[in-house]
Amino acid sequence: MRGAVMHAPGDVRVEDRPDPKIIEPTDAIIRLSATCICGSDLWPYRGVEALDGATPMGHEYCGIVEQVGSAVTTIRPGQFVVGSFWASDGTCELCRAGYQSACVHRTLMGTIGTQAEYARVPHADGTLVATPEVPSAEMLPHYLAASDVLGTGWFAAVAAEAGPGKHVAVVGDGAVGLLGVLAARQLGAERIIAMSRHADRQQLALDFGATDIVEERGEEGVARIKDLTRGLGAHSVIEAVGTQQSMLQAINACRPGGHVGFVGVTHDAAIGGLDLFMSLVHLHGGPAPVRRFLPEHLRLIANRDIQPGKVFDLTLPLEDAAEGYRAMDERRAIKTLLTL
Amino acid sequence: MRGAVMHAPGDVRVEDRPDPKIIEPTDAIIRLSATCICGSDLWPYRGVEALDGATPMGHEYCGIVEQVGSAVTTIRPGQFVVGSFWASDGTCELCRAGYQSACVHRTLMGTIGTQAEYARVPHADGTLVATPEVPSAEMLPHYLAASDVLGTGWFAAVAAEAGPGKHVAVVGDGAVGLLGVLAARQLGAERIIAMSRHADRQQLALDFGATDIVEERGEEGVARIKDLTRGLGAHSVIEAVGTQQSMLQAINACRPGGHVGFVGVTHDAAIGGLDLFMSLVHLHGGPAPVRRFLPEHLRLIANRDIQPGKVFDLTLPLEDAAEGYRAMDERRAIKTLLTL
Repeated sequence: MRGAVMHAPGDVRVEDRPDPKIIEPTDAIIRLSATCICGSDLWPYRGVEALDGATPMGHEYCGIVEQVGSAVTTIRPGQFVVGSFWASDGTCELCRAGYQSACVHRTLMGTIGTQAEYARVPHADGTLVATPEVPSAEMLPHYLAASDVLGTGWFAAVAAEAGPGKHVAVVGDGAVGLLGVLAARQLGAERIIAMSRHADRQQLALDFGATDIVEERGEEGVARIKDLTRGLGAHSVIEAVGTQQSMLQAINACRPGGHVGFVGVTHDAAIGGLDLFMSLVHLHGGPAPVRRFLPEHLRLIANRDIQPGKVFDLTLPLEDAAEGYRAMDERRAIKTLLTL
Repeated sequence: MRGAVMHAPGDVRVEDRPDPKIIEPTDAIIRLSATCICGSDLWPYRGVEALDGATPMGHEYCGIVEQVGSAVTTIRPGQFVVGSFWASDGTCELCRAGYQSACVHRTLMGTIGTQAEYARVPHADGTLVATPEVPSAEMLPHYLAASDVLGTGWFAAVAAEAGPGKHVAVVGDGAVGLLGVLAARQLGAERIIAMSRHADRQQLALDFGATDIVEERGEEGVARIKDLTRGLGAHSVIEAVGTQQSMLQAINACRPGGHVGFVGVTHDAAIGGLDLFMSLVHLHGGPAPVRRFLPEHLRLIANRDIQPGKVFDLTLPLEDAAEGYRAMDERRAIKTLLTL
């Protein structure tokens, strides 16, 4: 099969890779309907995360089940399925508590590489959610978004306790931040302040339900958020970047007793203990348990209540994955969908 | 009046200080029935926090109202009252949200110095809670504990979401950690693991409701907590020390999706962003909004449901405050009560 492989920072090639096979009886093999490039794929692309030799890329996926292992009981060949970027057994104590991304048997799909024609999905019964019917091509971007960015932005909004009566600030205007805006809207937030200085992203934030745009960053951005929230800071802040500056901006923009939900993969960031102590905020985040939200998300998408696939502003064939990476690296694209 | 003043690290003297006077019409003047020395008073005593010249000490207090300002409406002379170490107006948006320690008009009682015969209490209506009757002398330690350490340990337990079915670990066997044990018991926790290597403190933890004692610290301590919690870590962890090591110990002892409540004043501690990200814990803490819990605590104490004053294992006259500091600094005492 064909699949994207990163050989070095900046060097992504689509090449022949071995067809995946059932290894464990709980595995499924899927034929991908669409896949995409994640903001987190840019960390190794930019050399911030080290590569351990040539690495198959991709962890977002939706597709048609081709084959299942002998122990798979609920997922069947022919079904259209979406799964999270963490494969999870669905039965352990942490999965049952809604933290499937910490499943005691979790497998990171990024180690499998879903920017490819086929993929092996471990723990198929726990990981995959099937739709009642195979969706039309125009619906694929929305389902694909549910595999990571939608659930990640949603988790940040839930961690930030966005909801009725709440003023929510969103730090980061990438796909995850924008879908954090969508999630806050769905969760009933009263005011949603998107922090962005890019006209196209501001527009998408407004489409997704933002009520205010703040262009300032850092201390000025925090001051603007306080102006908009009776001088106290937002009740809920979504952090979707993962730098030292964005984390501090999020904590400082949040009122005492408020909630910061953070999902930007934190690189080289450290939170000063005394800053956090004096802020009196709640802090929760990490690798999103996307699987927790998948059944609801697939229903909202099928009902056309949400259109998370709008975050894909570049669509290329899998063979052109390298250009998709370049476009995102150069910030010419928010997020690239790869067709098959 | 007489009051304790710190002149330099290790140098506490009880000397004549000016009698406090009503400054704002919302003030009250109280005659202290008892006061005490806090673990946080040891930071300047040990030179970890800088002193800005000779500083009146103390922020914990209970006593009889002597006089009130013209705008005070609910507190009356002759009442026995307890207040938090933060004076708070009780009416601002943050007070009403239960974060009185972040009140927009908050005043730190430590800037007033309650290790003294009298004290001025700002925002008397918001800050003070009166008991129906003046309590007997034997009850004073329990009421005094409600001014800070009880509410602080309780806030940590609430922030850690200790409750029915929960396994709670407590890092720190000082007065706050021990009262975190008591709070977790009152909140209905199933299992309460106190981390302590001092026999007297272990005994008090057991008296307060601990079900298990772990003597190991650091990685070994974390491994022992995991042994006791089905390999996953505690649902709830109370951090009541405030060092880099204790904070990491708390985060690592907590399961993904669990809650860490931290109330140790964090000095020279920084939390690695990626460590926190991967831990998937909830983190909440800071200066405890003790006032939130005061009405309930005074009721529990009056009913003799709880005896938080047991943390006082040394009682001295105010005049001997210097010896009280020395005993706590040398860990000969958990907490020193000063009589008047």
